[in-house]
Amino acid sequence: MRPSHVLAVDIGGTKLAAALVDPEGRVTAQDRVPTPNEPGVGGEELWQALDALLAKLVAGAGDPPLAGVGVGCGGPMTWPAAEVSPLNIPAWRGFPLRERLRARHPGLPVRIHNDAICVAVGEHWRGAGRGHGNVLGMVVSTGVGGGLILDGRLVNGASGNAGHIGHVVVDPGGPPCACGGRGCLEAIARGPGLVAWAREQGWRPDGRPGGSDATGVELAADARRGDPVAGAAMRRAGRALGIAIASATHLCDLEVVAIGGGLSQAGALLFDPLGEALRAHARMDFARRARVVPAALGQTAGLVGAAALVHAQDRYWSAG
Amino acid sequence: MRPSHVLAVDIGGTKLAAALVDPEGRVTAQDRVPTPNEPGVGGEELWQALDALLAKLVAGAGDPPLAGVGVGCGGPMTWPAAEVSPLNIPAWRGFPLRERLRARHPGLPVRIHNDAICVAVGEHWRGAGRGHGNVLGMVVSTGVGGGLILDGRLVNGASGNAGHIGHVVVDPGGPPCACGGRGCLEAIARGPGLVAWAREQGWRPDGRPGGSDATGVELAADARRGDPVAGAAMRRAGRALGIAIASATHLCDLEVVAIGGGLSQAGALLFDPLGEALRAHARMDFARRARVVPAALGQTAGLVGAAALVHAQDRYWSAG
Repeated sequence: MRPSHVLAVDIGGTKLAAALVDPEGRVTAQDRVPTPNEPGVGGEELWQALDALLAKLVAGAGDPPLAGVGVGCGGPMTWPAAEVSPLNIPAWRGFPLRERLRARHPGLPVRIHNDAICVAVGEHWRGAGRGHGNVLGMVVSTGVGGGLILDGRLVNGASGNAGHIGHVVVDPGGPPCACGGRGCLEAIARGPGLVAWAREQGWRPDGRPGGSDATGVELAADARRGDPVAGAAMRRAGRALGIAIASATHLCDLEVVAIGGGLSQAGALLFDPLGEALRAHARMDFARRARVVPAALGQTAGLVGAAALVHAQDRYWSAG
Repeated sequence: MRPSHVLAVDIGGTKLAAALVDPEGRVTAQDRVPTPNEPGVGGEELWQALDALLAKLVAGAGDPPLAGVGVGCGGPMTWPAAEVSPLNIPAWRGFPLRERLRARHPGLPVRIHNDAICVAVGEHWRGAGRGHGNVLGMVVSTGVGGGLILDGRLVNGASGNAGHIGHVVVDPGGPPCACGGRGCLEAIARGPGLVAWAREQGWRPDGRPGGSDATGVELAADARRGDPVAGAAMRRAGRALGIAIASATHLCDLEVVAIGGGLSQAGALLFDPLGEALRAHARMDFARRARVVPAALGQTAGLVGAAALVHAQDRYWSAG
């Protein structure tokens, strides 16, 4: 049996997911477990949960010979060495993920990148950006992340951090951002940012007047039901996204912007004001040709993109 | 004699410049003429002026065998076919510059790119960005343009227009831009935009109370002499530049931003407020490492960059 599958891994704050992905980008087997992420969980305990998930998946698939291991993981991380310190996984701080996976899979390529970059790569390789040379893939959720494919190749930048569209400035006098700046796209359009703004305007999640754990997805649902403040919050996010995408399109001469993540499921409530702001600000002839589309691969985009770091290394992996 | 020199050309609204550039990026001969750009000048007349300039330069250098022809020209243009329609040269609209130069130099590579991109390439190859993989080169003058080198290569984008930092949005409610948008960097920081703003605030160019032809360079000179309105105008431009560079740095994970063009000669009057705004908005760890520096090559950057389209084609030319 030829070593044709990549073991793809997606490491997030709520779940660990793994899959076997064939050279065409098809997921032939997958599994997931909740991320052991309670206070007090140690780094080794988390690693063992991941190790068990991978062992079970590969054994269940008849232990096929592997072409390599591809991983998407929350940032920040050193890159390409991938000592990872995911913001939402406190148990791992400088955890040597690449080194550990290399020891687990001697002789195989092990390649790790930011989770939002893997989503962008997945959408470029087999999703909404397929066939285009210049694509921004975005994830709009509790944060706003992304990845850039330009001239047909994934852009890494100086430290593997290219694609951070969430920290493009859309309103210099706007709200403070967790990064320490002000008026970043993420400060306005991330789910919790939208919820905070809506609350200030008087929005109360249905049936939960206190509801400190209301999410952007609930806010979007209320907007669909006609709640005026929730609707205004979605318009505010859409406008911010449109302005940031206009800037990115002018700077990078993009053809397609593919938007995924929980908030993107708000549909026209988000995409209509986004399109309006984009048309107002992306005015150069070349920029008016860019299209903004919903991501196509859903939950598997990150796994498919992680696999592409090995399967399509000529386009998506330029590091050692 | 080995064909070692590139015939480099820089086509602007006020001058046509040409040079012979060796493989090390040294200019071994150069010449220039004013651009015949009066109303009524035809496209062929302009071509003949260019043809004469090139013939004189090459003959004066002993007619060396050439490795190719590299050209920077004002946009817009089709790319890479280079039918050029420079905004500030009305005589050329869809002029087939690449085709004409190919007919003039049969068998040689002829490569044409946007003039600001050639400046960025020159600064990357032999100037302030040398040795770095991720560089934004900018020209701040009567317009604001640029070029992007990422992961060691020039980025072209979908239509050769990547690098248009001038149309990154820095203030969504800001002044209208010639592109049809609002609050673009160029609308605020281009010389004529600064002059217009300073006039509104009561600035009068020294000794020329009417002075409709005052320039950004004069404004900068007045700022150096302590004129408060001129100083405020430079701060306004610097802040806008800092915000746009913060956005570009987050999106592209840049190491170096090299700023050239007439206005960049204002020195600390521009670079101090720029640095302040950049430090306020570029807060992610990776972005704080980026450096903003003055361009190093001055007037020859565009010629050196045009030559690099041939001399260093592995990095700077990916089209046919």
